[in-house]
Amino acid sequence: MPDYAIGLDLGGTNLRAAAIDRSGVMLDHISGATNFTEGREAVLADIVAAIVKLREKRGAAGLAGIGVGVPGFIRMKEGFITGSNNLPYLENFPVRDEISRRLAAPVILENDANAAALGEQWMGAGRGVDDLVLLTLGTGIGGGIVSGGRVLRGFVGMAGEIGHTTVVTNGNPCGCGNQGCLEKHASATAVTAMAQLMQLGHNLTSKDVYELARQSGEAGEKARTIWRVMGEALGMSLATLVNIFNFPLYLLSGGMLPAWEFFAPHMMETLERRSFTYRATKSETRIAQATLGNEAGLYGAAYLPWVEK
Amino acid sequence: MPDYAIGLDLGGTNLRAAAIDRSGVMLDHISGATNFTEGREAVLADIVAAIVKLREKRGAAGLAGIGVGVPGFIRMKEGFITGSNNLPYLENFPVRDEISRRLAAPVILENDANAAALGEQWMGAGRGVDDLVLLTLGTGIGGGIVSGGRVLRGFVGMAGEIGHTTVVTNGNPCGCGNQGCLEKHASATAVTAMAQLMQLGHNLTSKDVYELARQSGEAGEKARTIWRVMGEALGMSLATLVNIFNFPLYLLSGGMLPAWEFFAPHMMETLERRSFTYRATKSETRIAQATLGNEAGLYGAAYLPWVEK
Repeated sequence: MPDYAIGLDLGGTNLRAAAIDRSGVMLDHISGATNFTEGREAVLADIVAAIVKLREKRGAAGLAGIGVGVPGFIRMKEGFITGSNNLPYLENFPVRDEISRRLAAPVILENDANAAALGEQWMGAGRGVDDLVLLTLGTGIGGGIVSGGRVLRGFVGMAGEIGHTTVVTNGNPCGCGNQGCLEKHASATAVTAMAQLMQLGHNLTSKDVYELARQSGEAGEKARTIWRVMGEALGMSLATLVNIFNFPLYLLSGGMLPAWEFFAPHMMETLERRSFTYRATKSETRIAQATLGNEAGLYGAAYLPWVEK
Repeated sequence: MPDYAIGLDLGGTNLRAAAIDRSGVMLDHISGATNFTEGREAVLADIVAAIVKLREKRGAAGLAGIGVGVPGFIRMKEGFITGSNNLPYLENFPVRDEISRRLAAPVILENDANAAALGEQWMGAGRGVDDLVLLTLGTGIGGGIVSGGRVLRGFVGMAGEIGHTTVVTNGNPCGCGNQGCLEKHASATAVTAMAQLMQLGHNLTSKDVYELARQSGEAGEKARTIWRVMGEALGMSLATLVNIFNFPLYLLSGGMLPAWEFFAPHMMETLERRSFTYRATKSETRIAQATLGNEAGLYGAAYLPWVEK
């Protein structure tokens, strides 16, 4: 009888893998740097090696399944990655089947933000909640939707691309072809760009802008304006999500959460003004911080074999 | 063994009820004018009388269940209607339980647009498709989402309020407290308001604006501009929906469909530009006209007892 699953999360700087049991206890954990520039074979070999190592340690007999979270859009049926900025050499390549072949075991491929949403639902801020949306606020903005306890994937596997929904009709241009995308107005990259537009300095990180916001004086004022605009963009997106889904829980994660005190009040104000559904369900609808940090995707990947069976 | 269900659709001008069998054949049909101004008791009596009449004719033994579609938001657990412009006297009143009591039979209450989406999925343009979104283009814009063959209701029952998602950041004000709502830029009411702003005349209906668009000359040009702006608003909303859901089918229904030739090209152009998910799945994603017209809600209401069991 299977007693653990293996999850792997392929991130921009780290590859993490873990053996996790059905109750969410992490039994073993592997973490290593990823070097995307080394190309396809290196990345595939790293993925397979990490999984093999965990499987050998825990034993193949107890393995319930293997889930792999990757950046980019997944074509579920084919097991392809498409539209991944970080992993162009994995595109239009049968990555799932190739990993599966090398492991001689089935593998479930999932988008990293979807996996993170599932992880939060299983072991994080969404425990006990069947329906939630997660927004990952990083250099880009990923989205993951869990509906009825399962990832909402859409018919191709590309659902949940909330970072590319419009929040400013004629806003900043985006590489996706659209303009005014959420991630062009509320990601760490957007905060950095606004800092430059506000002449706060070049190459400031979102953390720098957070530190500035804590100061008094003109620079502090400008930094707080940036967080206001960022919070309003998030609030706009949340209003749309609440009106569409009427889910009980919306989670935010990522490196910008420390600035919560500066953006969240504006986010909530915009959400409240723009969504009567939110106002009508205010006591029951929660907007909250995710709790698993960058281990959410790892938990979600390991949960896939249990929940997709 | 049950062989039919009763569906009832309570509209602004009509109350329809029908006995429909499991395969979608309409066995009996009742239609009458509704007079919302007569108050709660009159409306409740009309609803109950129509259902009783059908049940008596077909026999209670064969009745699988009763579904009732109403305008307004539904609080599912309580069986209440909330936020209905047309039926204020039914708000915060146990309407489902009261109908159920008078019929001595369980009743499933559903929002009218949700019921219409389910009806299209069962017997209309969505046959054979498990996941779709329906937008009803009327004096307002309703939305209904079917996911995995069932209505996506959200935890309170208010999901699918797509008409109140923002498509123009600083657009027209809406009674819901938001501004730039889809229904303030793409409904029949919005088309009428634009006709007035364009000085095409007072109190023109959307049908008048459609007729004008077919003409040459300045008025025709202005009318076509209105349909362009309306189509772009719809395209914006569809781009958001496609990015979020990655569903295979998005349906439009309502009295403005005759103007399809004038708004649809702009709608599709905006959708294509604003959604890379659409571009990546273009051959598989359909934007189409609903086919059941104003009987969609009736079919959907009658399907509820089968699908919610």
